[in-house]
Amino acid sequence: MIIDCHGHYTTAPKALQVWRDAQIAALEDPSHVAARGIVRITDDEIRESLEGAQLKFQRERGTDVTIFSPRASAMAHHVGDATTSLHWSQHCNDLIHRVCTLYPDNFVGVCQLPQSPGVPPSTCIDELRRCVTELGFIGCNLNPDPSGGHWTAPPLTDRQWYPLYEAMVELDVPAMVHVSASCNPNFHATGAHYINADTTAFMQFVTADLFKDFPALRFIIPHGGGAVPYHWGRYRGLAQDMKRPPLGELIRDNVFFDTCVYHQAGIDLLLKIVPADNILFGSEMVGAVRGVDPETGHYFDDTKRYVDQASGVSAENKRKIFEDNARRVYPRINRTLTVTAAARVSR
Amino acid sequence: MIIDCHGHYTTAPKALQVWRDAQIAALEDPSHVAARGIVRITDDEIRESLEGAQLKFQRERGTDVTIFSPRASAMAHHVGDATTSLHWSQHCNDLIHRVCTLYPDNFVGVCQLPQSPGVPPSTCIDELRRCVTELGFIGCNLNPDPSGGHWTAPPLTDRQWYPLYEAMVELDVPAMVHVSASCNPNFHATGAHYINADTTAFMQFVTADLFKDFPALRFIIPHGGGAVPYHWGRYRGLAQDMKRPPLGELIRDNVFFDTCVYHQAGIDLLLKIVPADNILFGSEMVGAVRGVDPETGHYFDDTKRYVDQASGVSAENKRKIFEDNARRVYPRINRTLTVTAAARVSR
Repeated sequence: MIIDCHGHYTTAPKALQVWRDAQIAALEDPSHVAARGIVRITDDEIRESLEGAQLKFQRERGTDVTIFSPRASAMAHHVGDATTSLHWSQHCNDLIHRVCTLYPDNFVGVCQLPQSPGVPPSTCIDELRRCVTELGFIGCNLNPDPSGGHWTAPPLTDRQWYPLYEAMVELDVPAMVHVSASCNPNFHATGAHYINADTTAFMQFVTADLFKDFPALRFIIPHGGGAVPYHWGRYRGLAQDMKRPPLGELIRDNVFFDTCVYHQAGIDLLLKIVPADNILFGSEMVGAVRGVDPETGHYFDDTKRYVDQASGVSAENKRKIFEDNARRVYPRINRTLTVTAAARVSR
Repeated sequence: MIIDCHGHYTTAPKALQVWRDAQIAALEDPSHVAARGIVRITDDEIRESLEGAQLKFQRERGTDVTIFSPRASAMAHHVGDATTSLHWSQHCNDLIHRVCTLYPDNFVGVCQLPQSPGVPPSTCIDELRRCVTELGFIGCNLNPDPSGGHWTAPPLTDRQWYPLYEAMVELDVPAMVHVSASCNPNFHATGAHYINADTTAFMQFVTADLFKDFPALRFIIPHGGGAVPYHWGRYRGLAQDMKRPPLGELIRDNVFFDTCVYHQAGIDLLLKIVPADNILFGSEMVGAVRGVDPETGHYFDDTKRYVDQASGVSAENKRKIFEDNARRVYPRINRTLTVTAAARVSR
C-alpha cells in the first residue's frame, strides 16, 4: 500500500470560498456578530471536485490513500480573531470529513487548527479532539506562525504550546508543521514562507529539549524538511558545536520529513542523507506546483516516480517510506484502514 | 588560483567588540551624543588574530585569496539608529581595510553597509563609495532584513533599493545577500535565519523584473543558495506556473550561489543542478560551523575538499567555480590582484 501523507483539499467546491469571502467581508462591520452559518455543498459537487484531480492522480500514479487536510494556504490564521478561525476551521474540517466518508478507501482526514495570533494554542484542543474522536481524523496541521509571515508566536519549543502537545500525545496524533499564506511581502507563500518555516521548525527542535518533555510527540516537517537535508552537514556541525545530540538521535522518534521535493536529485539527496525511518512519502498533490516538468514529461509533484527511481534504496526502506512509517507516525490510520478494508470485504 | 568569496572577520581583536559594547551601552542614555571615537588595535593584534585562523586554514586547505568582510552576525543593523550603524560599519570596514593592507595577497575587502530599519538604503551609498573608491573594496554585503528577523523592510525588488543598486552598478560591485543576527526567538541565526534569507531573496528575484531594470546588477546568494538547489524542481515548476522565464535564464548574469554547504552530498547536488557559471567557491571560514566532521575527519567548512571530490564536474567548470566566476562577478578583484602580483614581482 502506498500512503501519501501530504494532500490538501485545494480543489474544494466554490461554495466554501464563497462562505469564507463573506466571513471576511463581515469582519469590516464592527457591529457584526460572528456566526458559523452553513456551507451548502452537495455530495456530487464533492465527487466532481476530486474525480478529475486527486482521485485521478492517485489512479494514474499508483498511490492508494492520501492523508488529507484543508487547503494550507487558505487557513490564513492571521485573518480576524479566534472565533473567525474556529468557524472557518470547523467548516474546512467538516468538509474533509465528508470527503473521507464518501471515499473511505482513498482519504483519511487531518485537521486544520483554529489558531489565531496571540491566542494560546490550548484553545485549539477542543477542535482537535472533535476531529479525532468524532470525525475519525488521524492528525493535525500545526501553524508555527499564525501571524502569516511576521513570526510573532513563540517558538514551537515554548511551553505555551505544551497543553496542545499534551492533547496530541493523549490522542496519539502527530502534527505536520505547516504555515499558511504569507501577508508579509518579503515571503512568497509556497516558494519561501513554506520552506523557511520547515527549516525554522527543525532548528527549533535541534536547540531545545522538547522531546525530553514529550517523548511520544511527533512532527512531520513537510517539503522534504525545507533546507535541512541539503544542509545536513551544517546542521550536524551546529548540533555538535552546541553540544546537542547527533541529529539522527535527536529526530529518531519525533521528527519526520515528507518527500515533497520536485526533482530526482533532491529526492536522491533526501533518501541518501536522512534515515529511512524518518521519511514519509508525500506529494502535496494537488498543490504548490501544478505543471508538467518539460525535462521529464511528468508532473513536478509526481514524487512517487522519484522515490521509485532513487538508486541505492533497499526495497525494505522504500516500503517504510511508502507505508510503514506513515502507519507508525499516524497510528490511528491503522484503525481507519482496517475498518474500510473490512467494509470492502463485507460489501 | 583559488578565490574564496565568503569569509568574515569573525576573529577580530577584542577591542572591536569592546568599542561596540560601549556604543550599545551608550544608547541607553538618551542625552548621549553619538560619536565615532577610536578603536585601538595594533597591526600585531591583527596579525595574531589571523595567523592561527584564516591564514592557517588558507595554507592548510590550499586556497589563495579570501573575499573578506566584517563579521556578518555582528552587523546587527537593528541596534540603535542609522548613526549607530554608520559608526559601527565604518570601524568594521576600516579594520577589514587594514587586514587587506597587511595581507594584500590573502584578502580582498567587501564592506558592511550602514543599514538601519526603516531608513532608506540610499543612506548607505556614501559608505559603499568610500569603501570601493578609497579602500579598494570590491563588493558589499546587503542585509535584506535590517530588522533582524522581523522582516519589516520591503523586498529586494522594491524600488526603495534602486538608488543603492544604481551606485552598485556604477561602481561595478556586486552584493552578497547576507542577514545578520536574529532578534526573533523563532530564528536561530546561522541555522535558520541565514538560510531562510537566502531562500527568500531567491524567490523575490524569481517573481520580479529587477534584472530587466538592472541588467548589470549582481547578487551572490550565500550558503549554497539556501534551500534553492535542493528544491530546484519546485522553483522551476513555480516559475513555469507563474509564466516566469526558466530559472537558468533568470539568474544567468545576475544571481550566483556560493559553495557554503558542509557535506559532500549537498555540494554534489549543487554542482549537478545549478549552472557552473552561477557558482562561486566559498567556505564561510571561520564562521558558522567550527568543528571537525567525525564522519570525514575534516572541518565541516573545508568546502574545497567537497568541490575537489565532486564527480562529474569538468576541470573547466571547477576552474570557473574556484576562480573565473569570482573574477567576473567581482571584477574589481582583477585590479587588486594585478596590483599585488606586480608588487610581489617588484619586491
